[in-house]
Amino acid sequence: MTHNSPPSALVTGANRGLGLELVRQLLTLPQPPKLVFATCRNPNGPQAQSLQELAEKEPNLRILRLDVTDPTSIQLAETQVRNYLSGEGLALLVNNAGILIPSSLHEEKASSMHLSYQTNVVGPLLLGQVFGSLLKKAASIHSKKELSWARAAIINMGSAAGSLTELLGWEYGQATSYRCSKVNRAALNMLTRCQGLTYAKEGILCAGIHPGWVKTDMSSISEYTPMLTVTESIQGVLKVMAQLTEKEAGAFLDWEGHVVPW
Amino acid sequence: MTHNSPPSALVTGANRGLGLELVRQLLTLPQPPKLVFATCRNPNGPQAQSLQELAEKEPNLRILRLDVTDPTSIQLAETQVRNYLSGEGLALLVNNAGILIPSSLHEEKASSMHLSYQTNVVGPLLLGQVFGSLLKKAASIHSKKELSWARAAIINMGSAAGSLTELLGWEYGQATSYRCSKVNRAALNMLTRCQGLTYAKEGILCAGIHPGWVKTDMSSISEYTPMLTVTESIQGVLKVMAQLTEKEAGAFLDWEGHVVPW
Repeated sequence: MTHNSPPSALVTGANRGLGLELVRQLLTLPQPPKLVFATCRNPNGPQAQSLQELAEKEPNLRILRLDVTDPTSIQLAETQVRNYLSGEGLALLVNNAGILIPSSLHEEKASSMHLSYQTNVVGPLLLGQVFGSLLKKAASIHSKKELSWARAAIINMGSAAGSLTELLGWEYGQATSYRCSKVNRAALNMLTRCQGLTYAKEGILCAGIHPGWVKTDMSSISEYTPMLTVTESIQGVLKVMAQLTEKEAGAFLDWEGHVVPW
Repeated sequence: MTHNSPPSALVTGANRGLGLELVRQLLTLPQPPKLVFATCRNPNGPQAQSLQELAEKEPNLRILRLDVTDPTSIQLAETQVRNYLSGEGLALLVNNAGILIPSSLHEEKASSMHLSYQTNVVGPLLLGQVFGSLLKKAASIHSKKELSWARAAIINMGSAAGSLTELLGWEYGQATSYRCSKVNRAALNMLTRCQGLTYAKEGILCAGIHPGWVKTDMSSISEYTPMLTVTESIQGVLKVMAQLTEKEAGAFLDWEGHVVPW
């Protein structure tokens, strides 16, 4: 029997928006993962209520605390995931958590540059490192040797569209929520490319996916017109993930599978 | 009379390599700047000796302490530059200081990711902010209204080639000094693009220049074959700077003036 979908998955920033919808849709796949780990910074806070409600109905769903900016928290989550998997590997890691801190170029602070970088770029690097051995285990015990999301994969969600949740210092000028997200997106894309090259040798497919500009309360801060619902975006993202092959290792695709120009 | 070269210039990381050569060649232009500020972290240390020797022969050269990772140090340097210029603006700011910290993807640390980001991306952002008012002053008092390096410009040196000086943790695998420099370069290029858009409105031209892969002791760590001497690289860089116009605002060019693909 072949697996058309990953036997296990972990999604960061899964308490709302695109992350929550991704967890939801993973669980309704024809062949859903036996375990989906939905992580967020504060699983017991008011902003994780929808996720908690989902967990009451979904026996395959586990909610874990994980702050992508905190290496200790990443390690602790890995230990819990390892215990839950009891000897199996983790097949799919989705780095979805991200922040966008709007500010003008003139007023941008070093501290918020670093906070964005930590969350959006260093976080995905560390997650890949810490969960690397579980991903390699999934890669090594899979029946097929081709790269696929069903075997072992890291997906970096490469956009601030789903992550307009941390609005510190709300003084946007149109040009520069732009600036802030773009600098980080460029760095994340490049990280994806390097991860793609490095991890492919270990049987782990790594790619970036841009979920599109999704309708949310905050999407008016962008120069793009919101065009997708969260549901539509994630339907596309999942379809793209399922079709990834070795050819796409290190690539950055949009929710329709088109290569995103740099 | 028109100015074909900037009346004043500041170069960071000017104690050796490409930075030092840039200072040297600026001072030998047919119409050299009246003041060139060469900055580095430790002007009195052994690694600034060549710069000190140059200053003994060059009355237009001022050496200043400036650590691009330290906002206070940037502010102090700005105050000194402002005093030296006594009412005139600063025409040219070259963000040349940079570091490359080789490491494998598996062993890369959050701390060195942040140190690189601070030096190579946040530093140029802060320099642009802190020296912004002196650059605007230069832009406003210039006789011509077109953007040019002779009026007011920020140049981001967008490569690690000239900055292989901080080798913390020398455990390179070929693929990953690559990784390290590329993630930062992607972010710096995007910053340049955003600065280009923002500062053009204020009369300040901002562009990125890739100096090529220059022959140094360290250049064997790259997948590129070193092909240029420091002298040749900087001759090219200066020629490109001198030809920049509004069209190139936010662009990233190599030492021969070709647009560098993302």
